Amino acid sequence: MIRFYAPDIETTAKLPADESAHAVRVLRRRPGDEVEVVDGRGTLYRCRLVTDDHRGAVVEIVGRVPLPKVWKPYITVAVAPTKHLDRMEWLVEKLVEIGVDRIVPLRCARSERKEIKAERLERIAVSAMKQSLKAVMPRIDPMTSLSSFLSETRCTGEECYIGYCDAETPRLLLAKAYTPGADVKILIGPEGDFSPEEVASARAAGYIPVTMGDNRLRTETAALVGCDTIQILNQLDGF
Amino acid sequence: MIRFYAPDIETTAKLPADESAHAVRVLRRRPGDEVEVVDGRGTLYRCRLVTDDHRGAVVEIVGRVPLPKVWKPYITVAVAPTKHLDRMEWLVEKLVEIGVDRIVPLRCARSERKEIKAERLERIAVSAMKQSLKAVMPRIDPMTSLSSFLSETRCTGEECYIGYCDAETPRLLLAKAYTPGADVKILIGPEGDFSPEEVASARAAGYIPVTMGDNRLRTETAALVGCDTIQILNQLDGF
Repeated sequence: MIRFYAPDIETTAKLPADESAHAVRVLRRRPGDEVEVVDGRGTLYRCRLVTDDHRGAVVEIVGRVPLPKVWKPYITVAVAPTKHLDRMEWLVEKLVEIGVDRIVPLRCARSERKEIKAERLERIAVSAMKQSLKAVMPRIDPMTSLSSFLSETRCTGEECYIGYCDAETPRLLLAKAYTPGADVKILIGPEGDFSPEEVASARAAGYIPVTMGDNRLRTETAALVGCDTIQILNQLDGF
Repeated sequence: MIRFYAPDIETTAKLPADESAHAVRVLRRRPGDEVEVVDGRGTLYRCRLVTDDHRGAVVEIVGRVPLPKVWKPYITVAVAPTKHLDRMEWLVEKLVEIGVDRIVPLRCARSERKEIKAERLERIAVSAMKQSLKAVMPRIDPMTSLSSFLSETRCTGEECYIGYCDAETPRLLLAKAYTPGADVKILIGPEGDFSPEEVASARAAGYIPVTMGDNRLRTETAALVGCDTIQILNQLDGF
């Protein structure tokens, strides 16, 4: 059954405009029809359509099914959006599939893309969430400068890593550094990598330089492999 | 320095036509200029251009640098190409980046795409190999039926896994099943999954049903996560 996304369903008992139009105009759902709705925070709602208003279809909630995320730690990935938007959009889709909690588009000194619309990434995340039968959406931040992001970080009670390509800098292998079960923040730089000054400020904030292995990876691949490494290590330890 | 791909450089001392045109017409390399060439089998050649023939530029080999693959086991992934070609092309790029030895496009009972041009996938693999500074290309097979692929498999001296979504079938977690260091074959089915008959024949051939975790993944994501799991477990054990 096709699912709809309504983050405010508990308070509004309505589908948002775009989801209403999809349900009513494209899929021709009518009052009385059953629909499944997810709120992006871990609940699946079994609903019955009450009106077929394509700008805001009213629903009656028939049942609630908890569908929490299947991994335990809180995984944040802060990544410089790629020059080509399709690579970043692809990354968001894949991050939703493998499961992360928060995606922060990062503005860095050498970023080729200085702006990105969070709404566009949100739409892709919603679509990936539905397709992968999840009820949990990652939080997607607006474009954030590295310095702002570092200033919010305490690196206490969580593990903080910065992916860095420069072989001159001593780096740990992420797969060996990460402690399964721990909340984690991973920084991934742009195509031209972080600047030495950015690495220094991240280290001062408690971030540990890591590598994903001996393969040279594109920005979006490094972000995905980094998060996948965390997921696999947690699976191995039953988290 | 931009690298060129010439699988037969040792016998021909020439760049292939497309690489010659790129070197001479696009990058305007001239006789006497230095170029780097990879053969796709683990050697980087430092060369000097002798002619600027855009249909087959002659080179003089000045030096040979071994650039073998950085992982030890032989990793084969046989995957049903996705309906949308761009997802399969994306997968090939990512598999080259994270490193696999052989990619087999698989024709299955429920395949939405029954044909695919191996040359098109090869071009993407060549480009990803250059971009990720590798000198090793995975072997890319022509479209192969599952039954043909199974008939070549002995599953002796290697571990054979089939990714399968049906929760009714007992499955191991790939991350827990795989023995680091072992050669491995992984089967990934099409959007509609393998048919029960296909799973039965794979099991009869020695394939063990596995899951990549509790997240529902698209075909191309499952193939990537499967191979990445193998790479990460090998990294952890120093292979």
